[in-house]
Amino acid sequence: MTTQQPFKRIALMGRQRIEGISETLETIVRFLEKHGYSVVLESLTAALLPDSHLPSVQKEQLHDVADLIMVVGGDGSLLGAARIGADQNLPVLGINRGTLGFLTDIAPDDLNQVLEVLSGNYFSEERFLLQAKVQHDSQHEGAMIAVNDFVLLPGDKAQMITFDLYINDYFAYNLRADGLIVATPTGSTAYALSGGGPILHPSLDAIVLVPLCPHTLSSRPIVVKSDSNIRIHISDSNYTIPQISHDGQRRIPVPIGADITVTRHSKTFTLIHPLNYNYFYTLSTKLHWKG
Amino acid sequence: MTTQQPFKRIALMGRQRIEGISETLETIVRFLEKHGYSVVLESLTAALLPDSHLPSVQKEQLHDVADLIMVVGGDGSLLGAARIGADQNLPVLGINRGTLGFLTDIAPDDLNQVLEVLSGNYFSEERFLLQAKVQHDSQHEGAMIAVNDFVLLPGDKAQMITFDLYINDYFAYNLRADGLIVATPTGSTAYALSGGGPILHPSLDAIVLVPLCPHTLSSRPIVVKSDSNIRIHISDSNYTIPQISHDGQRRIPVPIGADITVTRHSKTFTLIHPLNYNYFYTLSTKLHWKG
Amino acid sequence: MTTQQPFKRIALMGRQRIEGISETLETIVRFLEKHGYSVVLESLTAALLPDSHLPSVQKEQLHDVADLIMVVGGDGSLLGAARIGADQNLPVLGINRGTLGFLTDIAPDDLNQVLEVLSGNYFSEERFLLQAKVQHDSQHEGAMIAVNDFVLLPGDKAQMITFDLYINDYFAYNLRADGLIVATPTGSTAYALSGGGPILHPSLDAIVLVPLCPHTLSSRPIVVKSDSNIRIHISDSNYTIPQISHDGQRRIPVPIGADITVTRHSKTFTLIHPLNYNYFYTLSTKLHWKG
Amino acid sequence: MTTQQPFKRIALMGRQRIEGISETLETIVRFLEKHGYSVVLESLTAALLPDSHLPSVQKEQLHDVADLIMVVGGDGSLLGAARIGADQNLPVLGINRGTLGFLTDIAPDDLNQVLEVLSGNYFSEERFLLQAKVQHDSQHEGAMIAVNDFVLLPGDKAQMITFDLYINDYFAYNLRADGLIVATPTGSTAYALSGGGPILHPSLDAIVLVPLCPHTLSSRPIVVKSDSNIRIHISDSNYTIPQISHDGQRRIPVPIGADITVTRHSKTFTLIHPLNYNYFYTLSTKLHWKG
Repeated sequence: MTTQQPFKRIALMGRQRIEGISETLETIVRFLEKHGYSVVLESLTAALLPDSHLPSVQKEQLHDVADLIMVVGGDGSLLGAARIGADQNLPVLGINRGTLGFLTDIAPDDLNQVLEVLSGNYFSEERFLLQAKVQHDSQHEGAMIAVNDFVLLPGDKAQMITFDLYINDYFAYNLRADGLIVATPTGSTAYALSGGGPILHPSLDAIVLVPLCPHTLSSRPIVVKSDSNIRIHISDSNYTIPQISHDGQRRIPVPIGADITVTRHSKTFTLIHPLNYNYFYTLSTKLHWKG
Repeated sequence: MTTQQPFKRIALMGRQRIEGISETLETIVRFLEKHGYSVVLESLTAALLPDSHLPSVQKEQLHDVADLIMVVGGDGSLLGAARIGADQNLPVLGINRGTLGFLTDIAPDDLNQVLEVLSGNYFSEERFLLQAKVQHDSQHEGAMIAVNDFVLLPGDKAQMITFDLYINDYFAYNLRADGLIVATPTGSTAYALSGGGPILHPSLDAIVLVPLCPHTLSSRPIVVKSDSNIRIHISDSNYTIPQISHDGQRRIPVPIGADITVTRHSKTFTLIHPLNYNYFYTLSTKLHWKG
Repeated sequence: MTTQQPFKRIALMGRQRIEGISETLETIVRFLEKHGYSVVLESLTAALLPDSHLPSVQKEQLHDVADLIMVVGGDGSLLGAARIGADQNLPVLGINRGTLGFLTDIAPDDLNQVLEVLSGNYFSEERFLLQAKVQHDSQHEGAMIAVNDFVLLPGDKAQMITFDLYINDYFAYNLRADGLIVATPTGSTAYALSGGGPILHPSLDAIVLVPLCPHTLSSRPIVVKSDSNIRIHISDSNYTIPQISHDGQRRIPVPIGADITVTRHSKTFTLIHPLNYNYFYTLSTKLHWKG
Repeated sequence: MTTQQPFKRIALMGRQRIEGISETLETIVRFLEKHGYSVVLESLTAALLPDSHLPSVQKEQLHDVADLIMVVGGDGSLLGAARIGADQNLPVLGINRGTLGFLTDIAPDDLNQVLEVLSGNYFSEERFLLQAKVQHDSQHEGAMIAVNDFVLLPGDKAQMITFDLYINDYFAYNLRADGLIVATPTGSTAYALSGGGPILHPSLDAIVLVPLCPHTLSSRPIVVKSDSNIRIHISDSNYTIPQISHDGQRRIPVPIGADITVTRHSKTFTLIHPLNYNYFYTLSTKLHWKG
């Protein structure tokens, strides 16, 4: 909780689809420059500020010009920044768009709190990521990375998927279900929570497996160590071609008979919070535990 | 429980995808003819018995030549027979394929039990159906019929659906979820049960609404009277085109801004059981409540 | 929704434990008398207004002097009034204490809404009650009445209860669990909801059975017709003496080997709402479905 | 998986309430002695074999005379042995009574498997325990130890408990509920599972907090690191005196206003399995995941 390494060079990010994002970004740029900070725009974000004089930098080069990624938006926006932060070894600070997020806890009208953080008064935590590989007929497809979760889903038919689950090569179970969520602690408060999963404290080195609408009624979420090898074998008896998504994005078809292997990714990302951050306060606010 | 109207003329049904179905149908035909019953084949079923001498009858004409539909297969097969039974005003008897079903309770190797039933010693119950209409821009699409359930599902994107629910024109709630199941008591032990819904006793005139992975964690299944008008309005804010399926079959896209209206269908179907039928025995066997 | 029978003679009720109840009752008395209504105090309520000039009437005589019971407090207070209302054949109107209740929907600072209701502009609905009888060694104990629910609970030991459930004399299941809730639609939004039960619309003639922490993980809530005979047999294998409570009140021990029979009570009570009442608005407010 | 330290001196345990326990113990004693093992009886177990020539040893002295505790019975019996094993630094092997347990995986009629284990061919794992302290008005009560769980429960009234939860001195939430389960991974498949908790893999250094019938419907199980400080403050607003139980045993009243602090116990116990042990096989068998 003592003063930590201050941040001087800020890489700013935002996403197109968020209403009023350009105005908010401009306000933040003016504020940061007024207080003497160096600001660069991640290249996709630069398109949202066409008249800006600021340098535009590809996400793969952010490490050379910045020591913090500041992302404006909701939790979804932060997921993208987190993947870059993990790759570029840069910490990430989230500014929400007026509504408290699980990952974005500074309000856009509280920029003095931003100054506090930048000066070294912050709380930082490491969050791990997952990677998934699909293998079929001894062919490997490229790995996917997820901050929240991988989700096995049915394809275009309204049919359940049948699959075998192996944990560290031990056969765990065969299940027929709408799908399976494999989530980090960060993802445990996202889709996995709607699917009936437990909340994993962010400091926990664990992964939760949440079956979606399992045909076996006594099926339950299982929490395993984060260094577990999780293998999902798509049974030959399926009539549908399942798909896998990462962080709620792009779906990739998974051939019948294929294996999906999910493991902990080699890199983590650093999430920055103001000093008054309390994980449980966010939880109780977001989940309407009060009143 | 007293002796009821016996059955003399049997319309036999089976589905192609079930392994060994032709042999089982042949055995049953021989057995029924040996005991003096008149047998006809529903026309699609006739294709499974190409060498048969039996008359093949379109499902729309079964009422003229039969006083009972006997269907061989699992619960899925019975759903199709039930829709015909409702339309043709014919009771339905299910012969399972070796595994007890919720709807098909006679084992194929217990044909003496079939004789008992045909002679008038049976338990019969009425099960109601649902119909759904999709309306968009004052255009009505044709009605769908379901024995088990209608399910609102996402289209091809891994995104939740946002919709408004109205019960008898009262606004009930706005929800973001993976979907919504609208199920009869018959359907309450099918997909709705995997989705976390309660079991509705078959004699109950009620419909259960089960949200799938609701974003609002305090959302719960709701049970309403079977004569309720259930209207689902697909919000304009959706980025995905949802779909609706009936009894786990054919998915129909539902345009953004459309209304789906689900009501009780005007017809019921009559399900025939042996006299020793106990609904709860089936429940506890199927759900592994013993031991 | 047209104008109905107006109310002239008001029996007022309140409960001692609610803070500031005397002041609220006095305000309402003055308001009602100013507008020409006759007011009597239920005798226990009279103790809260010792200086009042109003007649005090035993609850068993309310029918002779009043045509409406008006109760001030939370949902718990209304349950007591509802039992009297059922017995005395008097409708019940609830005034909450500042927080919307499931049953008490008029705010105490909105007394003009009370005038509207009294003048005949109201929505009325019938809610049914349950009764339970305990039988052991051919001895019958007196019946209990419940508006919300009966709950089977462990006694003083931290042990599960083993019991058999019969519905209309059909054996349903044997279960080991912390207990069992038997709830009306009115009770479905009370304790049964915390126990994982579904919401039953108040107009539904149904009872829900919710097992508490069942040892059998595939056990699920079951909804049956309100005219069902529900019998719970306390197995001889229990090491603890279970108890039964009604509406969260008084616990009665149930001997091992005894049968508890729950049926629909012969009387209903009439619940009065303002015309703008929407059941689902109450639901979504109480369950924080908004935002 | 290679051969490990063999066991020579066996301390045998069993519990009185299990039917036929004396006969099973005698069979095992004869078998062990025939194969040249030294056997002692834990002193309470000795009462079950009054005619035995074997030495009877107090549980506090077992470490001096044995290098393995062998316990015959169900999972409940093993919990007692595990507490002794942790205290005496002795590994524990469970022999079940005919039904596979989560902790007792050798069948009593498969004593050759016992020989295999004793010869050094076994799989061993460390399981941690919890301790709880109750503090009120600066008075500390003695610590309790639990292998499975601590459970906060209502006292003799059918009323919910109101409490505040603190994790590492951060305020987590205020909840009104029937109670709270604090469970180890070992306990996650016991009562916590009936309460709706997730399954924690035994190798996970984590504790799960499962609220029982929470009044707040969006309340969810939370999984935290095993070195967390979990503090439950019993709110002053309670009308009932709650109780706390450990491993389903003895209930201790907890005064209103008191704090219960649960932490990881300083000692672990070593659970011995045959080499073919697969945790998930036990899970799927016990939870009826097959078929």
